[in-house]
Amino acid sequence: MNDVRTERRVRGGGGAARRAERTAVSMDTAKFITRNIPNFEILNEEALEIIEWNADTVLEEIGVNFVENPAALQLWREAGADVRGERVHIPRGLARELCKTAPSTFTQHARNPERNVVIGGKGLVLAPVYGPPFVRDNEGGRRYATMEDFRNFVKLGYMSKWLHHSGGTVCEPTDVAVNKRHLDMLLAHMTLSDKPYMGSVTEPVRAEDSVTMSKILFGEDFVDQNTVMTSLININSPLTFDSTMMGALEVYAKHNQAAIISPFIVGGAMAPVTVAGTLTQVLAEVLAGVAYSQLIRKGAPVIFGAFVTSIDMNSGAPTFGTPEAAHITYGAGQLARRMGLPYRSGGAFCGSKLPDAQAAYETANSLNMALLAGVNFMLHACGWLEGGLVSSYEKFVLDADQLGTLHHLAKGVSMDENGQAMDAIREVGPGGHYLGCQHTQSNFKTAFWRTDVLDYKPYETWEEEGARDSATLANQRVKKLLRDFQAPTLDPAIAEALESYVAQRKASEPDAFG
Amino acid sequence: MNDVRTERRVRGGGGAARRAERTAVSMDTAKFITRNIPNFEILNEEALEIIEWNADTVLEEIGVNFVENPAALQLWREAGADVRGERVHIPRGLARELCKTAPSTFTQHARNPERNVVIGGKGLVLAPVYGPPFVRDNEGGRRYATMEDFRNFVKLGYMSKWLHHSGGTVCEPTDVAVNKRHLDMLLAHMTLSDKPYMGSVTEPVRAEDSVTMSKILFGEDFVDQNTVMTSLININSPLTFDSTMMGALEVYAKHNQAAIISPFIVGGAMAPVTVAGTLTQVLAEVLAGVAYSQLIRKGAPVIFGAFVTSIDMNSGAPTFGTPEAAHITYGAGQLARRMGLPYRSGGAFCGSKLPDAQAAYETANSLNMALLAGVNFMLHACGWLEGGLVSSYEKFVLDADQLGTLHHLAKGVSMDENGQAMDAIREVGPGGHYLGCQHTQSNFKTAFWRTDVLDYKPYETWEEEGARDSATLANQRVKKLLRDFQAPTLDPAIAEALESYVAQRKASEPDAFG
Repeated sequence: MNDVRTERRVRGGGGAARRAERTAVSMDTAKFITRNIPNFEILNEEALEIIEWNADTVLEEIGVNFVENPAALQLWREAGADVRGERVHIPRGLARELCKTAPSTFTQHARNPERNVVIGGKGLVLAPVYGPPFVRDNEGGRRYATMEDFRNFVKLGYMSKWLHHSGGTVCEPTDVAVNKRHLDMLLAHMTLSDKPYMGSVTEPVRAEDSVTMSKILFGEDFVDQNTVMTSLININSPLTFDSTMMGALEVYAKHNQAAIISPFIVGGAMAPVTVAGTLTQVLAEVLAGVAYSQLIRKGAPVIFGAFVTSIDMNSGAPTFGTPEAAHITYGAGQLARRMGLPYRSGGAFCGSKLPDAQAAYETANSLNMALLAGVNFMLHACGWLEGGLVSSYEKFVLDADQLGTLHHLAKGVSMDENGQAMDAIREVGPGGHYLGCQHTQSNFKTAFWRTDVLDYKPYETWEEEGARDSATLANQRVKKLLRDFQAPTLDPAIAEALESYVAQRKASEPDAFG
Repeated sequence: MNDVRTERRVRGGGGAARRAERTAVSMDTAKFITRNIPNFEILNEEALEIIEWNADTVLEEIGVNFVENPAALQLWREAGADVRGERVHIPRGLARELCKTAPSTFTQHARNPERNVVIGGKGLVLAPVYGPPFVRDNEGGRRYATMEDFRNFVKLGYMSKWLHHSGGTVCEPTDVAVNKRHLDMLLAHMTLSDKPYMGSVTEPVRAEDSVTMSKILFGEDFVDQNTVMTSLININSPLTFDSTMMGALEVYAKHNQAAIISPFIVGGAMAPVTVAGTLTQVLAEVLAGVAYSQLIRKGAPVIFGAFVTSIDMNSGAPTFGTPEAAHITYGAGQLARRMGLPYRSGGAFCGSKLPDAQAAYETANSLNMALLAGVNFMLHACGWLEGGLVSSYEKFVLDADQLGTLHHLAKGVSMDENGQAMDAIREVGPGGHYLGCQHTQSNFKTAFWRTDVLDYKPYETWEEEGARDSATLANQRVKKLLRDFQAPTLDPAIAEALESYVAQRKASEPDAFG
């Protein structure tokens, strides 16, 4: 590690140690979650073996399409697959064998080393919502997202104690040209936060920009030798790998940067309407995608992804927080662990248009499930509204607060002498009261999770203060956080180099929209 | 069973078969949940053994108080306990030994035999909120509950597909004298619903009334030989058994009617601030209470109860849906299963004043936890608001809808050929769409849980229809259900006998308030 720091200091103009000194860690950020509780295993051994067998049958018999990607087809041919046109038939066992070179855990570095995250194992790393073209807040309602919104969400993410990761497209800044917005987005993550972030995947050249800017931030050799980005590669389910996403994957894998290989499933539309059928397809897709990443570069860090929702068969709308999505999420976690891969799933999913009771039921269902499913990387962990069409300011802080409950749940039960509390039971005895006893006094500050936004006040006080609902309380917290925001310090030379790169790249081509 | 029916026909004037014929089962009610998924086991063997050892230490060394109850003290003496004053010291192992005669599962009969529930094993029976002195609805806000509210909540419970049980004090009808309201409440459960119900526990004489009225409804011998009520006996934690609750328990146990023996814990106040300490005290209290029930009548049906919340150490307010409560609920479930007893815990718990996002986060956290904790009887499964001070009309139907997700979650994953869906994957292939395929068509009606109240509409439609939030949608559903309500038919002679008993008992003593 010291060697690496030296490299960075010399070549990148920074160096982790100096950077850490200069970074004013004003915000209290929790360490990523390490589970001290078991995972929930919904499938038995027999069921898992059937699904694994069936997934291999799918790969061999049906195959997967690598679209407009002759180089990929050539790699598959060389690896022993039977390629017919764009269809790749992968002999039973081959994909799983190829996946074995992918690491079971990896560290994603942040520019502030205290914010580094380990992805895999018993860990759970939480990142905010990704992708919505709209935003909503209490005052303005629903509207197209702008770059100002984007910066605001990065700020909120930086200020959120229970969020470990700055994420990627926290909303789509629709006021910036589609071929240039990734530059502004990366700049915002790099300058307004010191948490780890994601790279662009919408074109291979934008992935290259993400690598280049990361090299400016971290130092060239550091990026070659370490993972500083985790990016989202969606599979075009069913069983299709398009050249845009694969192009981005190729860039990241070559540079040893991490990718989530993620089937994008609305059950009943992009996958069978049954749980076991969906799991089979998800596993086949991940096997093919991860194997391909290892054909690009053995050892490239990847994550077993599963974005899963069900569908309302009447309206065709995707539905969230449903029991069927939970079954799939639990099962996919087991499949990922059997492959020895980090697992991405879950999120603050909801279909509701407002941060109301529906949104919160659906979200809490999803968050609890994701924790117990053994998820290692949870994208969309806060701020998601309306099926992912909207980034909600109020829901962002409400969800981010709930993420604290996951940290406390994951701690498990302390069985040491203090945890057993026998002296307290002796001291208080029948009919007594624990509030004043010594054991309570010495534990009360850390014993219970505490909210930063929900209301626990007496009814009369609550009414006098305006009978505010959760969305109103959240709105006030959003404003306070944005008011209090202070950017983490960054070497001015690095900031300048980043800005200059963005300006130069923007000037190099005309705006594209649409 | 046929013999029993004959008994009822002859002596009770009814008979299950004829009653079932006459009962217009207009409402679709789901069968109680049978879990086809594992329980979540948070504690390992060593932790469980420590807690069990410590609980026995508490019983032997510290003891429990049976207050103003010389008969109970005498029973304990005869059973081998060391009684000093009102303090009962129970030698290690004795309580657990006495508990062994309690059944691991029992059937609670409903007047409509289709609504019978089995409590214990892999089952989960859902019952509504219990005890609030206030009600809240969108129009009237928060106000004292009346008998009309009580009847409304019984009607809503009867109309709720996912609710298996009519419950007990769905709200406190504060407009009826405190010594008479139990009569009106029982009459409402018996006439406005045909689901199973709970008896009164506020005075032993009211428990006797509950038994008498049940005999009118079911027939005298039927009640002697079968369990037709499950009632809530709270322990005055820490470690205190008061004579009112014990008096009611004695009545029910003598009549072979079921009781939940339930520590009432606000962690940090009535129990230690740590999870393991609270579990120790909970187990000690349940061991003593269940053992006592078996001293009253061997084989009397009882439930291992655990009402658990944590506390906000700043305000002293109880908090709900918290991770610490989840730890305790998971752990207590393991302790209950090791005793071979049915387990009561969980509920639609929340501290919020409104059916808003806070309420729903807290509630969903609690409901999911309760399902995975192996709860067999869930009181407060819908309608609970503001820490149990308020029965909410809107939250009742929102929660009741969410209970459907628990039914679907508990089904587990089907691994038969239809579940595996290999033909569907073959039919659709890479790049295809499952919406139109044969497998989807033949499964879509039952594949996914469907809401009766949440919104899945397109944004534009939703906006045109008034941009309604969940509470507004719920309000409309409440009104529709109450408008559509039709009481299940009941033998007029029985109805008359019940009404006449209530009138006679009311006339027999003056009103008491307070």
